[in-house]
Amino acid sequence: MPENFPTQVHLLNAARELREPWSPRVVARVNDQYVKVAKLQGEFVWHAHEQEDELFLVLAGELRIDYRDRPAVHLRPGSLHVVPRGVQHFPVAKEECLIALIETVTTRHTGELQTERTRSLAEQLS
Amino acid sequence: MPENFPTQVHLLNAARELREPWSPRVVARVNDQYVKVAKLQGEFVWHAHEQEDELFLVLAGELRIDYRDRPAVHLRPGSLHVVPRGVQHFPVAKEECLIALIETVTTRHTGELQTERTRSLAEQLS
Repeated sequence: MPENFPTQVHLLNAARELREPWSPRVVARVNDQYVKVAKLQGEFVWHAHEQEDELFLVLAGELRIDYRDRPAVHLRPGSLHVVPRGVQHFPVAKEECLIALIETVTTRHTGELQTERTRSLAEQLS
Repeated sequence: MPENFPTQVHLLNAARELREPWSPRVVARVNDQYVKVAKLQGEFVWHAHEQEDELFLVLAGELRIDYRDRPAVHLRPGSLHVVPRGVQHFPVAKEECLIALIETVTTRHTGELQTERTRSLAEQLS
């Protein structure tokens, strides 16, 4: 998998180039973490990443993250939230929402769950 | 060192609360990385982090990062750049600049260099 990232990345512009919702693209790497951009619209799937935290930073629009065991988190542009490892979560964007994500390089898109909406790391790096 | 971070953080607002330049504050943690905000003004010091990459994301203002061995990088709001591990760099902000940083939790502020401008991790977490 290639890891030739540009010297700098404008996160919002990179996110605006995305066509497919819920299909993150890796734009940078810092240590063992990938920085990704994604376009969200509608509901995703309930999932957890057993060993890895996941950072959401909203770039445009609004994002809600529902939890089974704690209050939902409502995020507006400029705000970040970290989903703790092992916690079931469900992202929802009523309107189109552009985000940046930070995840460990080994994090799988939908955790242990494999669905038609799952995007492999190779797809996220392409 | 306490690690009780708020559920969500608005990066720009958190950076605006800072008083002292070149004194990062930790606002979140994702896996083994801290997310920090900092206010920069003027020149910092030449330093390198031997084992750790360092991500700069400009929130407001403009940042230049000079290198000894490659072209300087000019960053505007919304753009990120990763300083590779082991590479000497020199951040410069002609006017006040607000940034977010992502660094491994063990990263020391000025690498191996210890100066009066060095801020310990305890200070960055306080």
